Amino acid sequence: MVRRLTPADAPAYRAARLAALHADPAAFLASAAEFTALDDAALAARLAPDAPGVTLGAFLDTDLVGLLTLVREAAPPLAHRVNVYGVSVALTARGQGVGAALVQAGVELARSWAGVTSLHLAVMDSQAAALRLYERAGFRVWGTQPDAVRRDGRVYAEHWLSLDLTVP
Amino acid sequence: MVRRLTPADAPAYRAARLAALHADPAAFLASAAEFTALDDAALAARLAPDAPGVTLGAFLDTDLVGLLTLVREAAPPLAHRVNVYGVSVALTARGQGVGAALVQAGVELARSWAGVTSLHLAVMDSQAAALRLYERAGFRVWGTQPDAVRRDGRVYAEHWLSLDLTVP
Repeated sequence: MVRRLTPADAPAYRAARLAALHADPAAFLASAAEFTALDDAALAARLAPDAPGVTLGAFLDTDLVGLLTLVREAAPPLAHRVNVYGVSVALTARGQGVGAALVQAGVELARSWAGVTSLHLAVMDSQAAALRLYERAGFRVWGTQPDAVRRDGRVYAEHWLSLDLTVP
Repeated sequence: MVRRLTPADAPAYRAARLAALHADPAAFLASAAEFTALDDAALAARLAPDAPGVTLGAFLDTDLVGLLTLVREAAPPLAHRVNVYGVSVALTARGQGVGAALVQAGVELARSWAGVTSLHLAVMDSQAAALRLYERAGFRVWGTQPDAVRRDGRVYAEHWLSLDLTVP
């Protein structure tokens, strides 16, 4: 089951996000240390109805096992674009279609917003499974940015993908 | 002559930027109306030593005829990247190498910053002259983002370019 998270989900969001940052530190720009420094009020604000982004949570029974955030661009010439950030699936919940359900829910939600015509996201070149997940959902790579991320002495490129919502 | 602008240049910056936004509205995400709404203090703050970006100005005699802003990424995994924004050359000053001088000065300044390894920028697909300018300066297109900008009923793709500073 996938639904939008609310401020009441802040404790579960904290645990799920922290687990993701620890499980796969190379996949995210945020670090676990930075995230840990955010207090409950900051996390609740991220999940508030007026937050700049919408965070979807995937649940197995009552456990929050997946996250995906959509952020619509604010500037008028870009407001047709929705960016996808922070996608994670708990290690214990992988291989059960959680990621695909999250991405499908995100695409459907973005499609329901008037004036939105495309979704955009980036995947580090080390994230082969994530790339396949998005391509199966219809996203297409339009470019690979060199020298995108440097961490722990490694250099990563990023694959940039988009999904055209104007095609039925 | 190209030099870094300071808060004292705010009036000339206002005039040059406004002229650019009027001359080529499709080339910028900012609109002339939005820019006009910024007061002198806001413009001076953009040019202050502690601003997030560095704005270079190109002068012919004492006239400010070109602008280019460099913004280094803040997050540690991205801090090796410098983004190039807001490049413009006054209509009356085109064809005299002002754009090339500005881009060269920007590249040299970024190269002087410890830990910076690449410059990144985007050009709308309608900006053929700008694309050639960057390619002559050594930038290479690594991808073309579909559905990047929508304005006045038109859809623009954006060419994304980068310049590798680790190659001597």
